[in-house]
Amino acid sequence: MLGMIWVRACSALVGFRAPTCVRSLHSFPGITVAQIDEEVAKLLELKAQLGDDGKTQFVLKTPKGTRDYNPKQMAIREKVFNTIIRCFKRHGAETIDTPVFELKETLTGKYGEDSKLIYDLKDQGGELLSLRYDLTVPFARYLAMNKITNIKRYHIAKVYRRDNPAMTRGRYREFYQCDFDIAGQYDAMIPDAECLKIVHEILNELDLGDFRIKVNDRRILDGMFAVCGVPDDKFRTICSTVDKLDKMSWEDVKKEMVNEKGLSEEAADQIGEYVSMQGGMDLAERLLQDHKMSQSKQACAGLSDIKLLFKYLQLFHVTDKVVFDLSLARGLDYYTGVIYEAVLTQASAVSAANEAQNGANAEESVSVGSVAGGGRYDGLVGMFDPKGRRVPCVGVSIGIERIFSIMEQKAEASPEKVRTTEVQIMVASAQKNLLEERLQLISELWNAGIKVGVWQGGVRTDQGGDTVNNPTLRVWVPCVSTRGSSVAALSGL
Amino acid sequence: MLGMIWVRACSALVGFRAPTCVRSLHSFPGITVAQIDEEVAKLLELKAQLGDDGKTQFVLKTPKGTRDYNPKQMAIREKVFNTIIRCFKRHGAETIDTPVFELKETLTGKYGEDSKLIYDLKDQGGELLSLRYDLTVPFARYLAMNKITNIKRYHIAKVYRRDNPAMTRGRYREFYQCDFDIAGQYDAMIPDAECLKIVHEILNELDLGDFRIKVNDRRILDGMFAVCGVPDDKFRTICSTVDKLDKMSWEDVKKEMVNEKGLSEEAADQIGEYVSMQGGMDLAERLLQDHKMSQSKQACAGLSDIKLLFKYLQLFHVTDKVVFDLSLARGLDYYTGVIYEAVLTQASAVSAANEAQNGANAEESVSVGSVAGGGRYDGLVGMFDPKGRRVPCVGVSIGIERIFSIMEQKAEASPEKVRTTEVQIMVASAQKNLLEERLQLISELWNAGIKVGVWQGGVRTDQGGDTVNNPTLRVWVPCVSTRGSSVAALSGL
Repeated sequence: MLGMIWVRACSALVGFRAPTCVRSLHSFPGITVAQIDEEVAKLLELKAQLGDDGKTQFVLKTPKGTRDYNPKQMAIREKVFNTIIRCFKRHGAETIDTPVFELKETLTGKYGEDSKLIYDLKDQGGELLSLRYDLTVPFARYLAMNKITNIKRYHIAKVYRRDNPAMTRGRYREFYQCDFDIAGQYDAMIPDAECLKIVHEILNELDLGDFRIKVNDRRILDGMFAVCGVPDDKFRTICSTVDKLDKMSWEDVKKEMVNEKGLSEEAADQIGEYVSMQGGMDLAERLLQDHKMSQSKQACAGLSDIKLLFKYLQLFHVTDKVVFDLSLARGLDYYTGVIYEAVLTQASAVSAANEAQNGANAEESVSVGSVAGGGRYDGLVGMFDPKGRRVPCVGVSIGIERIFSIMEQKAEASPEKVRTTEVQIMVASAQKNLLEERLQLISELWNAGIKVGVWQGGVRTDQGGDTVNNPTLRVWVPCVSTRGSSVAALSGL
Repeated sequence: MLGMIWVRACSALVGFRAPTCVRSLHSFPGITVAQIDEEVAKLLELKAQLGDDGKTQFVLKTPKGTRDYNPKQMAIREKVFNTIIRCFKRHGAETIDTPVFELKETLTGKYGEDSKLIYDLKDQGGELLSLRYDLTVPFARYLAMNKITNIKRYHIAKVYRRDNPAMTRGRYREFYQCDFDIAGQYDAMIPDAECLKIVHEILNELDLGDFRIKVNDRRILDGMFAVCGVPDDKFRTICSTVDKLDKMSWEDVKKEMVNEKGLSEEAADQIGEYVSMQGGMDLAERLLQDHKMSQSKQACAGLSDIKLLFKYLQLFHVTDKVVFDLSLARGLDYYTGVIYEAVLTQASAVSAANEAQNGANAEESVSVGSVAGGGRYDGLVGMFDPKGRRVPCVGVSIGIERIFSIMEQKAEASPEKVRTTEVQIMVASAQKNLLEERLQLISELWNAGIKVGVWQGGVRTDQGGDTVNNPTLRVWVPCVSTRGSSVAALSGL
């Protein structure tokens, strides 16, 4: 049977392919998309047949790079979300939601080299779809589609990346992002400074230990590339390589620039000098005087904005944590101005210990600390607008899986138990009888808005963990039907 | 350029395929899955190239059957979720979360005829994945994987069905489900009754007008099929047809049974008699005496349980809304006992008007009202357990898109505006100056936990709509820097 299918598929393939090949030497359009679809379907059918042959045991697991959240993890997650949402609301933001998938085209050309990590849906007839890769591109699509030119919004939702998962370090293929963005025309650097203030507030409130927020500007990077002699068409790809500096040594980054990307050794060395620089407003001032950097108009515009940014950050009292770092590049293509990234500087100890336990290799722990990132993307909305109308945008994304991991470890270490229900009253029975009385009592408690757990024949329906340890919790054992009076007393809780 | 790629791809295809074809006439394993993957990738690359050629205009939209939620819709959605979550917590439930996709195999064989509506992900190398179709199968997978035999949990998340969308009626391809399930060994019908109580509480609290909860039992249906002469192997498919009674007339259902599913006319007519029956505990008692129905042990077990269920529902004071309805079948394969479905009986007027406006046809409005459904599925967890260990489960799913639609229409009709932010103070400036003072003031308000909106040069960053109408909101126009005292006064808000 399998053999027959194979023969049929093969002859079909050969049958149409041979003449098409010849023809295509001269003219291309001899083959249609429909024909290719047909061939692909045949091959996949064949693959399915092969798969059936070497049938493997069904494995009970979640897909690679994903996980379930159990009730305890959900309780911690809710706490983290509440802190973040409270901050977003303090800043006057509204919230929106978008579908988990977008038209494939919506995502095309937005992520540069990262595009290969996008999950596509199977072509089951109809539109070609992809799972969202971040919340920024859907946001820009939403703005363009609804012709919105001014909004401050947050969006908390899962995004999907076919990356190499490192789950002990909180890196998943399905993970939450908490995005806050400001779209609209503002005086320079004011919304940008607000985004950094938000990162500062959230990381402070979550109490994750010390952190630093690195800041740079795409225009400074581009200007730097220009004055160092990088050809224009290599800016983005060299930028991607610089972005690896948090995971790779300078030597390896340089090797990639020279050997893989074809940059001259001299240009690479000059870049190397700049990307080792870190500082504050003073560094921006110094670079504005730098004989090479000052030749680039772009770089100067970026440096002046960094100065202005630091001025506002001073008014917000957050400069203690912010560093102007020329090695910060951020991988995504769509940034046009300021970019930033927050890293935890203390949590590494915890995670290193954790990784040693899990046998992950030590090298990997370098880039562990990044928990937030973002920047300005003034061109993205225009890419969706039929008339190219631009809406300036700046935003930040809190990557909370890493934060969850730390909070989980903290909760494990704490003697306090995490409650997973909010049960106020347990209704128990000492015997099998009185079922009706019990059900009536419970029903009246529910109707009075009281959160009830039940012990039934040794089975406790409340799995909340610390029920017994909770001093505010009462246990009721109905002996006779005393409903009228008892419920009146209870509703006063 | 395109021509060149084409030639290269073709020669590669021919190069490896010709000899493989010959070999495969005799022995199959000459080709590997990896080779097929490679070929598929090449063809798809080619298709992408072709696609560029016949470029069609990019359409700015969300995928078919999906939608964005704007801030106003989100505010309404949050209100509905809060009501539902409050109810679930009152019943002592914990919450969990699972990935949006599962291994394809996890979903295989769980949904009967509906399986064709599952979204598959593209095979990009690695595991074969599908988007979840409901929250019940992932829950069962979670229980089996973690060997949990007793839990009361809720799960609120989006599910995906490639169904024919009818968005004006709240039927989407991406939609939320709010699931509440009780897993574990209990006395008969006690958790089942609790699920119905929950539906009753939620629909009451949401104030959507009158509703009815239809109840039936898969064992009664199977017993009925048996005594009406339906062959054993046709139970599930005939059940699927009966399930269409809420969308189709009995005549059309009968036609499908007889013409498409090959049932005898007599059997169909006998089924027709039963499925027209509706009642309460009395109907269950009457059917237990029915000379045909009483021949089926299964039916009798189901009917006894329906009697017991009504007894408990009386104790919960919810029988006013519950109807034992023999036409209720529910499409999904996995139910084994009690099944139920809640329908709104008043909302149809609203929706009919709405549809007339949108030009939807009148026939469609028949099944509009279903907003919750569920049942008992004692076999599902066992399908995942390597040793087939069963965990009895019963649950209910609130399908809230329909509820959103109604709440949205209500909000539109109401003179009260929906607030989309929680801003307490607006900081405005009468002129361009005093920027620094303004930023300092805002920063201190943020630090004091106050929710701030900003008017900047005519742009209001708070898009909350009713800011001006909100009596609790104050507008601050800093004239000089009065920070010290002003903030102290404000934090008392």
